[in-house]
Amino acid sequence: MSETARIDYAELAEAWALLGLVDRVAGFKLLDADEAEEFFFDLDATDQAELLSALPLVERRRWARLLPPDDVVDVIQASSEDQRPQLLDLLDEYTRKEVAALLAYAEDEAGGLMSSRYARVRPEMTVDEAIAYLRRQAVSNIQPETIYYVYVLDAQQRLTGVLSFRQLFAAPGTRPVSEIMVTDVVAAPEAMDQEALARLFQEHDLLAVPVIDENRVLKGIVTVDDIVDVVEQEATEDAHKFGGLEALDDTYLRTRYLSLVRKRGGWLAILFVAQFATASVIAWFTTRMLDIVMLSLMLFIPLIMSSGGNSGSQASTLVIRSIATGEVRLRDWWFVARREIMMGLMLGTGLAVLGLVRVLAGHYFGIETYQTGFIRLGIAVSLSLLVVVMWGTMVGSMLPFLLQRLGLDPASASAPLVATLSDVMALLIYFTVATMVIL
Amino acid sequence: MSETARIDYAELAEAWALLGLVDRVAGFKLLDADEAEEFFFDLDATDQAELLSALPLVERRRWARLLPPDDVVDVIQASSEDQRPQLLDLLDEYTRKEVAALLAYAEDEAGGLMSSRYARVRPEMTVDEAIAYLRRQAVSNIQPETIYYVYVLDAQQRLTGVLSFRQLFAAPGTRPVSEIMVTDVVAAPEAMDQEALARLFQEHDLLAVPVIDENRVLKGIVTVDDIVDVVEQEATEDAHKFGGLEALDDTYLRTRYLSLVRKRGGWLAILFVAQFATASVIAWFTTRMLDIVMLSLMLFIPLIMSSGGNSGSQASTLVIRSIATGEVRLRDWWFVARREIMMGLMLGTGLAVLGLVRVLAGHYFGIETYQTGFIRLGIAVSLSLLVVVMWGTMVGSMLPFLLQRLGLDPASASAPLVATLSDVMALLIYFTVATMVIL
Repeated sequence: MSETARIDYAELAEAWALLGLVDRVAGFKLLDADEAEEFFFDLDATDQAELLSALPLVERRRWARLLPPDDVVDVIQASSEDQRPQLLDLLDEYTRKEVAALLAYAEDEAGGLMSSRYARVRPEMTVDEAIAYLRRQAVSNIQPETIYYVYVLDAQQRLTGVLSFRQLFAAPGTRPVSEIMVTDVVAAPEAMDQEALARLFQEHDLLAVPVIDENRVLKGIVTVDDIVDVVEQEATEDAHKFGGLEALDDTYLRTRYLSLVRKRGGWLAILFVAQFATASVIAWFTTRMLDIVMLSLMLFIPLIMSSGGNSGSQASTLVIRSIATGEVRLRDWWFVARREIMMGLMLGTGLAVLGLVRVLAGHYFGIETYQTGFIRLGIAVSLSLLVVVMWGTMVGSMLPFLLQRLGLDPASASAPLVATLSDVMALLIYFTVATMVIL
Repeated sequence: MSETARIDYAELAEAWALLGLVDRVAGFKLLDADEAEEFFFDLDATDQAELLSALPLVERRRWARLLPPDDVVDVIQASSEDQRPQLLDLLDEYTRKEVAALLAYAEDEAGGLMSSRYARVRPEMTVDEAIAYLRRQAVSNIQPETIYYVYVLDAQQRLTGVLSFRQLFAAPGTRPVSEIMVTDVVAAPEAMDQEALARLFQEHDLLAVPVIDENRVLKGIVTVDDIVDVVEQEATEDAHKFGGLEALDDTYLRTRYLSLVRKRGGWLAILFVAQFATASVIAWFTTRMLDIVMLSLMLFIPLIMSSGGNSGSQASTLVIRSIATGEVRLRDWWFVARREIMMGLMLGTGLAVLGLVRVLAGHYFGIETYQTGFIRLGIAVSLSLLVVVMWGTMVGSMLPFLLQRLGLDPASASAPLVATLSDVMALLIYFTVATMVIL
């Protein structure tokens, strides 16, 4: 129990990602048996796959057989197409069948997350029989991953009830399982999306959820430790999208340059082209306004544009997260819209006052020399700010709903996209207001 | 097992948030006993606290006693100061002591998340004795929340080992627990921050982590279902910060207008004042450049500024998430900097080409009339884009590291903040390059 002297294999496994493959295998061989085991289990599936592919066959078989079936599935999914049959061949027959069945599911649905190693009993068993039966399962090759919940299956393997271990333990030994089991089981269909599954876990505070097919036949269970990874992975994808790039398929450090350029460059180019409109708006007004007026207005273009973008980014991040956590749904859009109109009005008024003060201060303290009347300019800037902030708030709060309505990911209402949509409008608002106030 | 006919109480509990308090209590009273129970447990702590405070004393006591101790702690923490002693008084003495002990911890540290209801055995017990002992615990008022792990405590309540239920079940009945237990236990100190705790769960794929004091005395356990909430909560906080506002303390729908205005208005005003610099930069160059040159340059101000902000937002979201998931640490800053210099160079070159094409197209297709030479203008815009994108990428990728180095949250390197820092610089770069190329 020498806590301090202990090597942190998890940390070692992380550092792994930065090494070349030859160094990795050499490093792995330096570890003694216990160390190697702990290290291997702390690697993620991509690294495990890479390491396996570099080891000699005998060792490869040994390591592959140490992994539980659902982890083998992850490793196989992280391997290249041509290596998959080889990896399957490494397994014993029982596990191979299990793994092949699990491989049929997509990675991001309930079936793809499940383990087939769960504890099961029959409804007609007594409590004592069930406990003895579970004890036999613990040493068999079923090796339940978790026995917190015990699933009650009929002769057709259909899920008829569930027992927590506590309930089983607390019941008199001679009572039949069918009398103490809970029949109202929360279960997930095989194809349930992993985000919806995570919601199910959170709403019901469960440690494991059984996965059933259309006939209620139990196919496997998903345990909550896998859900932690799902929640983190979904949060990362949403963050990437909100930051204005395509979500990475792998971690940042492991993503290659070319892939990074593609995921970032695509959106960057789209946003860039969308911004062309700003040049056209300015050009259009330039031909219709006096040069000296335009030169005065120019000073505050960045200030006004950024206010719309910033208030929009705030609104969209709030709405996106509320949708992601399930707090807000599509049908709540009108409720949110009313809130955000109020927010836009209040925040916009605040910035309008600040903006007016800035223009007046610019004049009185001689920070800039305006080539047009400073009071009218101040009013134009101030009024524009109010409208622009309201517009930014509306775009930011409604775009996620619109995207979801169209079947797209609300998280794509990114800060840069909202800013771009708000920028063009901000210029239109600013120049239009200025035309009315100054000319 | 009528899946379809079943009311979704979790959904009902969500809708709850939109009702006024009088309607809520009236609605609650309409539910029958079973329904009310399911509904009550699906409410979150804030709603439970509010509901309890509105119920008559007898019912309040009944409901408070139905909650496990760690949930009572959450309810008490969600209540106002003056209601807390009253709530404690509702509990039976055993639970009150437990709750009082748990209340001593901060909400966001290991101690604040733990439950004192865990399964324990003594090292000198045989496997059969241990199983019988656990069976007694299941019916006692200890009622272990999870018995997936069984903790082995010595006479001083110090944690000396751990057993999974599977190990216990698989072992011969007469062997002593001390011979089959694992002594190298992953444990968390009481004051461990909840983010670090979540990392611990993920690195070791655990279902529960024991919490110990400095003498290794077991104080309680944290189960992984609470960690799902922690991960989601931390992701929401980070998203709010990245979106350019202060993280909300409560959900979006439950946050009051005044609090929302404060959390958003604060950053909005700071960013607004920081943007003042853009007006000064433009004013300064206006006095030094010909009006016709400024009027031509003005067309592309939004395009160039937004490119810096967008590439910065991409870089910062990648780095912030990598730091949050533990993939990247402070010491990796130089590795990231080299990657991002390359990225900035590649993305910047791409936008520079697009920008050049845009300026030339603007001339040849007569979209705008430039009041200065279009080739020099094209070169100025193009060169500026390259430098601005490189700058944006650097600011975006390095600011999170800088904030962490200063002990602040890297997630505060928000899209709006990065955009603002990049905007001022973008104008300086653009006008300086233009001065060199055009004049």
